[in-house]
Amino acid sequence: MSAIKKIFTSRSNANGIFFMRMQSILGFKPKDISHYEKAFTHRSLGLKKEDGNPLNYERLEFLGDAMLGAVIAAHLFEAVQGGNEGYLTKMRSKVVSRKHLNELGSELNLLRYIKANIPKENFGANIHGNLFEALIGAIYLDRGYPYCKKFIYKRIINPYVDIEKLEGRIISYKSVLIEWCQKEKKTFKFDTFEDTGKDTVKHFAVKLYIDDKIIAKARATSKKKAEEIASKRAFYVFQRQIEGK
Amino acid sequence: MSAIKKIFTSRSNANGIFFMRMQSILGFKPKDISHYEKAFTHRSLGLKKEDGNPLNYERLEFLGDAMLGAVIAAHLFEAVQGGNEGYLTKMRSKVVSRKHLNELGSELNLLRYIKANIPKENFGANIHGNLFEALIGAIYLDRGYPYCKKFIYKRIINPYVDIEKLEGRIISYKSVLIEWCQKEKKTFKFDTFEDTGKDTVKHFAVKLYIDDKIIAKARATSKKKAEEIASKRAFYVFQRQIEGK
Repeated sequence: MSAIKKIFTSRSNANGIFFMRMQSILGFKPKDISHYEKAFTHRSLGLKKEDGNPLNYERLEFLGDAMLGAVIAAHLFEAVQGGNEGYLTKMRSKVVSRKHLNELGSELNLLRYIKANIPKENFGANIHGNLFEALIGAIYLDRGYPYCKKFIYKRIINPYVDIEKLEGRIISYKSVLIEWCQKEKKTFKFDTFEDTGKDTVKHFAVKLYIDDKIIAKARATSKKKAEEIASKRAFYVFQRQIEGK
Repeated sequence: MSAIKKIFTSRSNANGIFFMRMQSILGFKPKDISHYEKAFTHRSLGLKKEDGNPLNYERLEFLGDAMLGAVIAAHLFEAVQGGNEGYLTKMRSKVVSRKHLNELGSELNLLRYIKANIPKENFGANIHGNLFEALIGAIYLDRGYPYCKKFIYKRIINPYVDIEKLEGRIISYKSVLIEWCQKEKKTFKFDTFEDTGKDTVKHFAVKLYIDDKIIAKARATSKKKAEEIASKRAFYVFQRQIEGK
């Protein structure tokens, strides 16, 4: 480890910048900072461990990828009770897609911590996701599975894993419809009015006009509900066009 | 859970046969036996959870597969210091191959615990591996990652994961060579004799004949060592033929 020490020492003690930045990214104090140093050591430095094996973050990616897969699997297992094995597998691969991991690594600006012997412009697009995976591998070595889980919840699941979105479920038909009308330069108007009639509870009715034609009507106990129902009805009228099929 | 209870209750209390058998397979006492009951509930029973979703072990396979992948990855990461990312991935896929998981499940005779509505003969060959994965999923739900790890070490890594074998490293050149001679109907003879000469330590020399021709010679401080060295030399003479290239 002497080679890596030379590179990181100045910033790796408990008050160093690297230690502090890691702590802020991780949400906990690193126990053994050398794992995190390794997670940012690029192969271009040509460093070697004492046993002669290369010293860089590539093996950590393998470890981090496996931990990420396990934590996301356990989360989806609980969160998507209705999903069978194949469905859960598909959802997981959406969460841990290369594209998504690159976004996560890029958002944390992990590239700023890398130690390499090539210009930063020369890294491929996947560098962000690779560093993100390596960081998770380092967390496993430093603190074990529970901290990996904590970190993955903090950085991925809580902020980004929206089951409804992942499942492609539509939460608001009204907003989908409005967005589509704007894109297609169609006019729309919700004509909503109280219409309790003989009911004991207050009711509202709505007429939904698109391009000045009534496309759908609905009636419910709130304006919001009535408009959502009418939007859903209109959605099904235009479904093929909205979904571009 | 009332449906599953009816099927398992008689054997599921802490003194029941199912509980005892699980304990013996797992190496620890189950906390919540219902997870293990689920791990042996086949879809053919058509059971449903209270929320209407199917109740069987298929989702647990997804969970168990992910935990297995993580534990094996962490083990290989430590055990194979010289392996890069791609190499570790390849080794892991050997360990968790469908064939291997089927052997493991079959050896534990997991099929005897299954509750199904079809004859056991009708299950495919993968039933053993599927139940094995589901069992690991149940362990995760019951006791978390550390117990999954413990179980996977006990049932897979300690008894079966031989890094040298996985890496295809040759442990005994002599046995490889003999096997090849027998397969190819070649005669072989180790002519081994004491040959200390002027050395202060006893030495042995060996001449290795294949099809009555001397192929290699060696000299070492034990018969065994000398024969292994000669075999290794002969191995390299015939390497392409032995490895079928």
